[in-house]
Amino acid sequence: MRVLGIDPGLRSTGWGVIEQVNGRLAHVANGICCSGEGVLAERLLSLHDQLCAIVARHAPDAAAVEQTFVNRDGAGTLKLGQARGIAVLVPARAGIAVGEYAPNAVKKAVVGVGHADKRQIDHMVRLQFPGIQIAGPDAADALAIALCHAFHLSAGGRLAAALARAGA
Amino acid sequence: MRVLGIDPGLRSTGWGVIEQVNGRLAHVANGICCSGEGVLAERLLSLHDQLCAIVARHAPDAAAVEQTFVNRDGAGTLKLGQARGIAVLVPARAGIAVGEYAPNAVKKAVVGVGHADKRQIDHMVRLQFPGIQIAGPDAADALAIALCHAFHLSAGGRLAAALARAGA
Repeated sequence: MRVLGIDPGLRSTGWGVIEQVNGRLAHVANGICCSGEGVLAERLLSLHDQLCAIVARHAPDAAAVEQTFVNRDGAGTLKLGQARGIAVLVPARAGIAVGEYAPNAVKKAVVGVGHADKRQIDHMVRLQFPGIQIAGPDAADALAIALCHAFHLSAGGRLAAALARAGA
Repeated sequence: MRVLGIDPGLRSTGWGVIEQVNGRLAHVANGICCSGEGVLAERLLSLHDQLCAIVARHAPDAAAVEQTFVNRDGAGTLKLGQARGIAVLVPARAGIAVGEYAPNAVKKAVVGVGHADKRQIDHMVRLQFPGIQIAGPDAADALAIALCHAFHLSAGGRLAAALARAGA
């Protein structure tokens, strides 16, 4: 099973794809979508087209998007929201269910505590996938979101299997 | 020339289409896209598909989306941003340029003052298009946005024509 994680942002959207092979998680690819300096419609279209290409190329079975907002100001949150809308839409249009996780849930799943900083996220992602190239901090965050979703789906699967055995 | 105006919202997105015929503005259609009660991905997909159908049916030449954010809280602004991202993306994907107007600019264009309330917007839209059925306040706002964009494009056209005559 392949999982796509997305860390949305209008300027830079991180993405990472991982897969579960024989019960172990492996890295597939990661990167950054940059939306350039044009008008908003062009930037959102560019982000949309880049994410469509990633979904077409890596064919994920599941996706997850970080659920966050900028506390500073409404304008920043609106920009993030617009990018996030595209990040959720693209897998949904491809028929892929989209999970959502708050930043603290992602940190807790990957680092073990909810208040980890970006360096700890990066460190744990590299420990999980030794030797990989990471395109940048947003891509590391996206891989962490994919890991969090894979743990979540895997735990759900184990629970479902245990319930099925108990019922049998 | 046909102009699509969109007043985006996650729960309810208003839309209105107007056209310029022999130098006069006429109403074509208006309505509300409701995104239902599902998870975010389903709601954004529903909004996307409804807006795609409107663009396909009414074939606008230009589009405009209101540029606003919720001051109250980050969560509300993020929701609005996600819907707004879809509202800007759909015409952009169809190759239609998307104008953006702050609420005060729309009010000033349609009512004459920047601090008009919703009833005044509704009143001026009905004066402009006598006898039309308006699907709701969000649809009235969307028609006002379309009007504002049509005035803007028309003023730009007159300016361009005057410059062309002056240059000839």
